[in-house]
Amino acid sequence: MRFQPYRSPSTGREVRAVLFDTFGTVVDWRTGVARHAAAFAAAHGHELDAEAFADDWRALYQPAMEAIRSGQRGFATLDALHRENLDQVLRRHGFDPGQLGGEALDGLNKCWHRLPPWPDSVKGLAAVRRSYIVGPLSNGNTSLLLDMAKNAGIPWDVIIGSDMTRTYKPLPQAYLRTAGFLDLNPGEVMLAAAHNNDLHAGRKAGLATAFIARPTEYGTGQVADLAPESDWDLSASSIPDLADRLGA
Amino acid sequence: MRFQPYRSPSTGREVRAVLFDTFGTVVDWRTGVARHAAAFAAAHGHELDAEAFADDWRALYQPAMEAIRSGQRGFATLDALHRENLDQVLRRHGFDPGQLGGEALDGLNKCWHRLPPWPDSVKGLAAVRRSYIVGPLSNGNTSLLLDMAKNAGIPWDVIIGSDMTRTYKPLPQAYLRTAGFLDLNPGEVMLAAAHNNDLHAGRKAGLATAFIARPTEYGTGQVADLAPESDWDLSASSIPDLADRLGA
Repeated sequence: MRFQPYRSPSTGREVRAVLFDTFGTVVDWRTGVARHAAAFAAAHGHELDAEAFADDWRALYQPAMEAIRSGQRGFATLDALHRENLDQVLRRHGFDPGQLGGEALDGLNKCWHRLPPWPDSVKGLAAVRRSYIVGPLSNGNTSLLLDMAKNAGIPWDVIIGSDMTRTYKPLPQAYLRTAGFLDLNPGEVMLAAAHNNDLHAGRKAGLATAFIARPTEYGTGQVADLAPESDWDLSASSIPDLADRLGA
Repeated sequence: MRFQPYRSPSTGREVRAVLFDTFGTVVDWRTGVARHAAAFAAAHGHELDAEAFADDWRALYQPAMEAIRSGQRGFATLDALHRENLDQVLRRHGFDPGQLGGEALDGLNKCWHRLPPWPDSVKGLAAVRRSYIVGPLSNGNTSLLLDMAKNAGIPWDVIIGSDMTRTYKPLPQAYLRTAGFLDLNPGEVMLAAAHNNDLHAGRKAGLATAFIARPTEYGTGQVADLAPESDWDLSASSIPDLADRLGA
């Protein structure tokens, strides 16, 4: 029997590509950044609340992108934004970035390239990939997403970084230009994400949508995005569960 | 023992990414296009010299890109250029494209998305990939290169199509922007190609270079590119041979 692609009720189209939000949905950024920051602090003989450090660094991500989304500032890569924000986070946690040396800070900044996947991610993506195009739909730049994939064995078919669309989610062009590079109608692209706001923006741009629950992305006390908050096309407990629901 | 990346004598850098010219170097476009064209002709009850058809279609590729490289015309994808040239080639071979229907012609045009790799390509790329980033450095657009990879099992790590660099080889920006998306110095990127003119342009842009012999790309009577015509960093008889020379 020939494989029948999943048809999205909301777009009325058969899905050809399933694109995944990456930070939080595919990789566990909090655990990964905290582990690297803890090692960095230990090497400098410095006490650190590593989870708080990770949370604080991540919290500066949206305001940094917002300056670009609003047009106040030209495009800069996520690597560049992380590096700028790193100085601020270090100071907040009692480091003097001026004393640490550029090479050490660039090395710590690269921890975003070496984040661990959630335990089900690689297996789940390999399953989806048998029947669909799989790729990230992330605010990460191409080299960051590529390094991450090489390090962790993430089996992307294609990587379209935000430095290729030159914009950031949740602006509609981030979704639409990605579909354009794939030569697909937006309705043939499914966004899979652990964040309801990302899915809202993807749906507004015409994409099919799937929620993937990641209830410990922000640790055991997480309060947001514990469940789907709208009638997304699909809702899954993991990427293998999404693969099953897609018939992959 | 830790893997030692190949150091390019010409760039003085360790190679991090090996990027492959695709049409002719990784896939056998002539056999693939001829096979699809022969099936198309048979379905229309038409006699066809399928190899000549493939050669004629390919021959229109450089002049079509030249209009874009020279600035006479804005960027258009290789899919669009192939489609324009198809009408001309069909007429030359006794078809009336106006009688064939747009859908049939779009389908034939997609034969460039379904080209067969040379017998050693997939195995060789998998070997290079164990130790280096591998990707195409092709004038093909992203969706073409992605479809080709999915169909043939070509194990790219990343696909940076000409629609992302928005220019065509052999202009220097085609090589430089590709290295830029990888966040690599051009000297850390090796271009592997079966065409000496591509390697000349890559070297001029600062890339490391490897010649791969494909002496039957244009059939058994091929006269050009039978051997390396300069002191490229490496010269190989196949992609697995290149993998060996790179220590991969």
